[in-house]
Parts: sequence; C-alpha cells; structure tokens
Amino acid sequence: MLSKTHTKYIQSLAHKKFRDEHGLFIAEGPKVVMDLLNSRKFLCKEVFALEAWISEHRKVLSAFPGIAIEPVKDFELSKISSLSTANAVLAVFEKREHPVHIETRGRITLALDTIQDPGNLGTIIRIADWFGVENIVCSTGCTDMYNAKVVQSSMGSLGRVNVMYTDLVAWLNENSQVKIYAATLEGKDVKTVSLTEGILVIGNEANGVSVEVMKLVSEKITIPGTGKAESLNAAVAAGIILSHVR
Amino acid sequence: MLSKTHTKYIQSLAHKKFRDEHGLFIAEGPKVVMDLLNSRKFLCKEVFALEAWISEHRKVLSAFPGIAIEPVKDFELSKISSLSTANAVLAVFEKREHPVHIETRGRITLALDTIQDPGNLGTIIRIADWFGVENIVCSTGCTDMYNAKVVQSSMGSLGRVNVMYTDLVAWLNENSQVKIYAATLEGKDVKTVSLTEGILVIGNEANGVSVEVMKLVSEKITIPGTGKAESLNAAVAAGIILSHVR
Repeated sequence: MLSKTHTKYIQSLAHKKFRDEHGLFIAEGPKVVMDLLNSRKFLCKEVFALEAWISEHRKVLSAFPGIAIEPVKDFELSKISSLSTANAVLAVFEKREHPVHIETRGRITLALDTIQDPGNLGTIIRIADWFGVENIVCSTGCTDMYNAKVVQSSMGSLGRVNVMYTDLVAWLNENSQVKIYAATLEGKDVKTVSLTEGILVIGNEANGVSVEVMKLVSEKITIPGTGKAESLNAAVAAGIILSHVR
Repeated sequence: MLSKTHTKYIQSLAHKKFRDEHGLFIAEGPKVVMDLLNSRKFLCKEVFALEAWISEHRKVLSAFPGIAIEPVKDFELSKISSLSTANAVLAVFEKREHPVHIETRGRITLALDTIQDPGNLGTIIRIADWFGVENIVCSTGCTDMYNAKVVQSSMGSLGRVNVMYTDLVAWLNENSQVKIYAATLEGKDVKTVSLTEGILVIGNEANGVSVEVMKLVSEKITIPGTGKAESLNAAVAAGIILSHVR
C-alpha cells in the first residue's frame, strides 16, 4: 500500500522545481522504463508496478539490485501517473550531469534554440536516436528534458542520446571548427545540401532561430513546400532534414 | 459578461459527444481562428475575444456578418479555453460534412489507419498542407479531427485540407485504380521510391498499419535509420516520406 506521503512525493516530481531539488525524474510504461533501465545511463531508484508486471520482469529487475520495487494496485498507479491511462509501471530515475564536452567533429550534432513544447523535444530526441545523432545541445530556454511528456515522447531514446543544456550562443562560438546549419524558411533546398559534419540548429516553434544564433549560421536549409501552410512543426522539420542529409 | 450557462456550453464542446450533438467545434488563438475564418470552409458562429483583439480585427470580422462577437475578460477566456495559456480569441465553428468523393488520380492522398494521438493528427494535417496534399482519409478508429488538440496542432491547416472519416478497408478497395503505399519498418528505401500518384497509408502509433489494410498495399516504404530507436513518430514519418517523394 502506497502511503499518502509517498504518493505526494512522486506527484511532486511532475514539477521541475522538485525534480531539480531531488535530482530525480519519472519514466512510465513498460517500453520507456525498460529502455532507460537497459541503457544503464540513468540510475533507477524505485519501481512502482502492478504485481503481474513485476512477476513477469523479476529476472530483468534482479540485474539491478539497488532498486526498491513496490507493487501497487491499479488505482494507486493512476494516482501517481501523469498519463491519461497509467501503463503497468512507473519508475523513478536519477537525473544525470550533462556531458561536459561534446565531440562535434566528423558527425552531426543537433542544437535546439528554445524548443518549448515537451512533445517536440521528446520527438526530436527519438528522431536523433533513429538517425544515429549522438548529441543534442539545448539552449537554456528549451523545455526541461526530464518533463514527463518529454520522457514519454522520446520513447526510451533518452537512454541513448546525450542531451545537454547550455548558453547556446557561447557554445556555438566555442565550436566554430565545424560548420553551423539552420532550418529556416528561406535557404538552400534540403535536397541539395550535403551535411556529414556540423551542427544543425532547429529554432523555436513560433519564432524560429533567434537573431543571435542566426548570426553564427553559415548555411540555411529549407524544406520546399507547395501548399499553403506557413511552416512545419519543429520536430518534423528536424526529421526531414536528417533524413535527407544522412 | 459571460453567463454561467454560456460558459458551460462552451466547455462542453471539449467533449466529442457534445461536439457531435451540436455540430460545432472550437478553435483558439489568433492564427488558427483567422486561418479557419479566411478559409471560408467552416462557418463561424461565435467569437469570444479580448476587447483589444476585437478592435484590432473589427474590419476583418465585419466581412463575416453572421458571427456573434462577445468581448470577454482574461479570466473568462481562461475558463472556456482548453489551452494552458488562453490566447486572445476563441471561436465556435460549425463542423462540416465530409466530402463524399475524393479524387485520387494524379495526386497523393494520405490515408490514416487508427492515428490516435490528437497532436499527431493535427501535425499530419499541417504536413499535408505544407506539401500540397489536398485530402486525408481517416479510418473510423482515428481520433476526432475536431478535438481541440488536433485543431490547435494543425495550425490553421484544417481550413485548407479535406479530412474524411470512413471504413478505410472499403474505401481502399473502391480506389484500387491507384497504387497503395504504406510507411512500414521493412520496405523499399524512401530515397528510391517514386510516388506522384497514389495513396500513402500511415499506421497506428503503436501497432503500425493493420493487417487488413496491409493486404491492399502494393508497395512498402521505409525510412532507413542508423540508430537504435525502434521507430519514428507517425507524423514525422509522414513528413519525411512526403518530402522525399514530391
């Protein structure tokens, strides 16, 4: 039986303030939880799961001896879940320190300039994982990578892609040894761009790439459209560009 | 001043049951509302907006004489809004009948097989608009196109793309004069596919294209990845395929 205090404690991790205070975050659902566990990138502290899920995964879980495993009933899981329908298991993981150095030579690195929608950030992490992009550098104005919706929409890819938060303008200046590209509405047709090494900047959902970042960009990339939409979703644009240049 | 009854009535339109009963739906925010108004595809019944927004748009609104315009205060707008931060204007539109016939010759048509996430459906409508795809055929298992999140994430493109709900298997059978393609994990590399006429099927977020639909597919298309993610988001996959084939 989950105590009231414990329930409130888990619920508090829905807020960035408490995630930062405790250095913890939540992952939900069998796929996301198992992917994060198996990545061995994040330390798992507690698992709350239905009895059936625990018995089914007892062997896997025993490989991670430090985890407190708490069987819960359906209604208890619903209380601590941030999903509209709780899904068998919820786990508490330790956040990890951002990597200090990111290698930008000989590869593509994504740089996100104030991506604010958690679903977009999670989807971009999943896209990076699909196309083999190892590192994502987020401006400090980006939404928190440990937000429940980010973790959920990354579909476990958070365990396989490095995400770092920093002053993006300063970081780009430090990484001028590689070319900086940006997704924009007026640039070179993505079909004609060759990009095997460099930084690809994806801008904010409403305002695109900021003026300060744009000053450092050496090549603008555009996805030509024939319809009337004003723009594409930021994650979709990232996916399309990576699919063409790789 | 918005009456309690009126407030409750608007709030009820967040539920499909009431949208169907009244034949109405809600759009929010300056861009989405103006795009839907200007598309002249959906009849606008009521506009609830801040005084400042109304004065700024008085001239545009006067071109649509049938609309009841109701000035509201910030707190009233928040009450009827489904957004986390209400955005200046909320409008009630009439749903419209699905087009009876969709021309599939000489163009690409999207077919959605049980797309359940409203954000994905809205993003796919926006992608279709970007790439000039005029028609989307949804299986009856797809989420409702008039759901607030669909309307929001379509960013006004709902006014420029036809969306129809039908028995997808029956509809595909009726449209066998064109080739049917599907986005799958094992198929022909998207970079080698030529698609200027045909139906492109995008499958469910978790289960992909259903067995019954797959039987009618003549060519499977895959987006090659080098990373470890199991799959791509459905809307991202749709965007990538359309960007390559057009």
